[in-house]
Amino acid sequence: MNKNIAVIEGDGIGPEVTRQSIRVLNAIADSFGHEFKYTYCLMGADAIDKTGSPLPDETIEVCLNSDAILFGAIGHPKYDNDPTAKVRPEQGLLKLRKSLQLFANIRPVTTYTALHHLSPLKTKNIEDVDFVIYRELTGGIYFGKKEISADGNSASDDCVYSAEEIERITHLAFQAAQKRRKKLTLVDKANVLETSRLWRKVVKEIASQYSDVELDFLFVDNAAMQIILNPKQFDVVLTENMFGDIISDEASVISGSLGLLPSASIGSGSALFEPIHGSYPQAAGKDIANPLGSILSAAMLLDHFGLTEEAGLVREAVNWTLTNGFVTKDIDPVNFYFTSTLGELISDYV
Amino acid sequence: MNKNIAVIEGDGIGPEVTRQSIRVLNAIADSFGHEFKYTYCLMGADAIDKTGSPLPDETIEVCLNSDAILFGAIGHPKYDNDPTAKVRPEQGLLKLRKSLQLFANIRPVTTYTALHHLSPLKTKNIEDVDFVIYRELTGGIYFGKKEISADGNSASDDCVYSAEEIERITHLAFQAAQKRRKKLTLVDKANVLETSRLWRKVVKEIASQYSDVELDFLFVDNAAMQIILNPKQFDVVLTENMFGDIISDEASVISGSLGLLPSASIGSGSALFEPIHGSYPQAAGKDIANPLGSILSAAMLLDHFGLTEEAGLVREAVNWTLTNGFVTKDIDPVNFYFTSTLGELISDYV
Ligand SMILES: CC(C)[C@H](C(=O)O)[C@@H](O)C(=O)O
Ligand SMILES: CC(C)[C@H](C(=O)O)[C@@H](O)C(=O)O
Repeated sequence: MNKNIAVIEGDGIGPEVTRQSIRVLNAIADSFGHEFKYTYCLMGADAIDKTGSPLPDETIEVCLNSDAILFGAIGHPKYDNDPTAKVRPEQGLLKLRKSLQLFANIRPVTTYTALHHLSPLKTKNIEDVDFVIYRELTGGIYFGKKEISADGNSASDDCVYSAEEIERITHLAFQAAQKRRKKLTLVDKANVLETSRLWRKVVKEIASQYSDVELDFLFVDNAAMQIILNPKQFDVVLTENMFGDIISDEASVISGSLGLLPSASIGSGSALFEPIHGSYPQAAGKDIANPLGSILSAAMLLDHFGLTEEAGLVREAVNWTLTNGFVTKDIDPVNFYFTSTLGELISDYV
Repeated sequence: MNKNIAVIEGDGIGPEVTRQSIRVLNAIADSFGHEFKYTYCLMGADAIDKTGSPLPDETIEVCLNSDAILFGAIGHPKYDNDPTAKVRPEQGLLKLRKSLQLFANIRPVTTYTALHHLSPLKTKNIEDVDFVIYRELTGGIYFGKKEISADGNSASDDCVYSAEEIERITHLAFQAAQKRRKKLTLVDKANVLETSRLWRKVVKEIASQYSDVELDFLFVDNAAMQIILNPKQFDVVLTENMFGDIISDEASVISGSLGLLPSASIGSGSALFEPIHGSYPQAAGKDIANPLGSILSAAMLLDHFGLTEEAGLVREAVNWTLTNGFVTKDIDPVNFYFTSTLGELISDYV
């Protein structure tokens, strides 16, 4: 198989973790006879420094013409204290999502026995947790009209959804549920929001096409409790953009380490794969960052190409490192291995 | 002291827990020589059944003319499956908040050693957790313009905030921080929302009047993680309506029991006090519900009247029941006491 992969190393630890993923992808290509071609491009603080723009047109161009995008991390502390600045790294990411119509953000939430001691939750609450969040990513209050009055004393953000925007991600979520434990939970606030009532209506209508999947509904405030009280109950969780931002980050604490959680953002064309962790600038360049989030994102990329066996092998290799204590400093501050050593171990394994 | 208290027993277990609070308030009145006069009124499913409206005008009238409102719980399962129904219990609560301008919802998050084993979080993560959430309650996306297109294929909810709406709750939150550990955290999404940027601007401006309070900012997605990862870091958390709905329910899981968490909703006039738990209809009429959430809400009501000593005594009595194992079925399903027994023990104590 021949594939073009756009690579956005991004900011902070982005470059060093992404490099390990590419090493693993190359090892997979070698073992299975595929050819992956990489084109590097810029986004985020790095892009602002080099071009003045958080998302140069060239990056959009390269991404549109690629089969998938591997992305590292975004953000630099120099922008953190002023979210009102005219040019900011996140704008690049939001614009890329919109330009590529990456309408579904997919976040698996799984736990690893070897990391149970790191979770803030009691072990009995997290054993066998295995769900996936489908977050709508290109609509809602993120992209609605934003206004600030002339005197600066009043502001507004409009949350808008069309039935079409809801339909396309809902189909993906139902299809995912069919391949899993056949349960879909829609998280909304239909007792207050008109957009949530539209979500409920559309999702209920589509449900009839997936009669093997059990559908239920949870108000977002209740969902925020249930995710901690009883995360085992979930299989596929579907929700709109803003609620998804909040509950997917909340759910990420369950496993005990943000460092190894992957994500995929899927659209009609090219899809983007990135670890959920941030750019973690304090660790940049020290070879101590956890590359597993990026490597497991690369596994999702392989799945996306239909290379299920290859993806499975990468996950097997990751499990093998964890159960044998080959872990980075965030997991074991005393007996730890370097970012690059993990990349090497995993590429050797696959 | 003479005070008029409006009492809305509401739905499900609302009446039986509220009765225990009134018993405790009467005991306090006896011991300290106060006079509390109660006027009963209707809201919620109960009000719909009896009058057709979730909030009869008479209730608004009584509440406006009272010094405080003691409220039980709202909601009945017959409305749960259809959030789009024309008349629903929650509408009563939302309308009451707006009519009385109850703009600040205050939710203390504390833990009790006797309940640590019930928390989904590891004990070391919850020891000494003690913070309070100030949620804006009458603005934002809850009360903005809601639209559904003629063909039903597009919906919108507008989120609007004025500087004034932000100012009044911000002052309350800073004043609370001054009486506590002098730290205020604003939770927003200023990297995406115009309204959040207005919140940040207004809160920063007001901060100069409270120079003894340390102010920091957290994006709501990060806050959703931090509340579970490290809840000890918070003192006063300030946020807008929708984010407050989500994170205050999330935070409520920390203590291990929703049954004993109180809340206050403060406005320019009369204030409302209610347990955070719902109407829990399965338990209604069985004398098994936990009355502590309501009784601790009554303690907040006493604080609101400036009766600090009285409020302290109620809290002392509650602690005494917990440490001596006088607990309801939700806390100990084997050796449990009845709702009314707890009310009796606590009124005898005070
Ligand atoms: C950086 C920010 C704009 C972004 C979002 O809110 O979508 C991030 O939190 C995420 O979840 O990818
Ligand atoms: C019942 C509902 C409308 C309400 C809200 O969202 O405000 C409830 O969840 C609450 O937090 O009091």
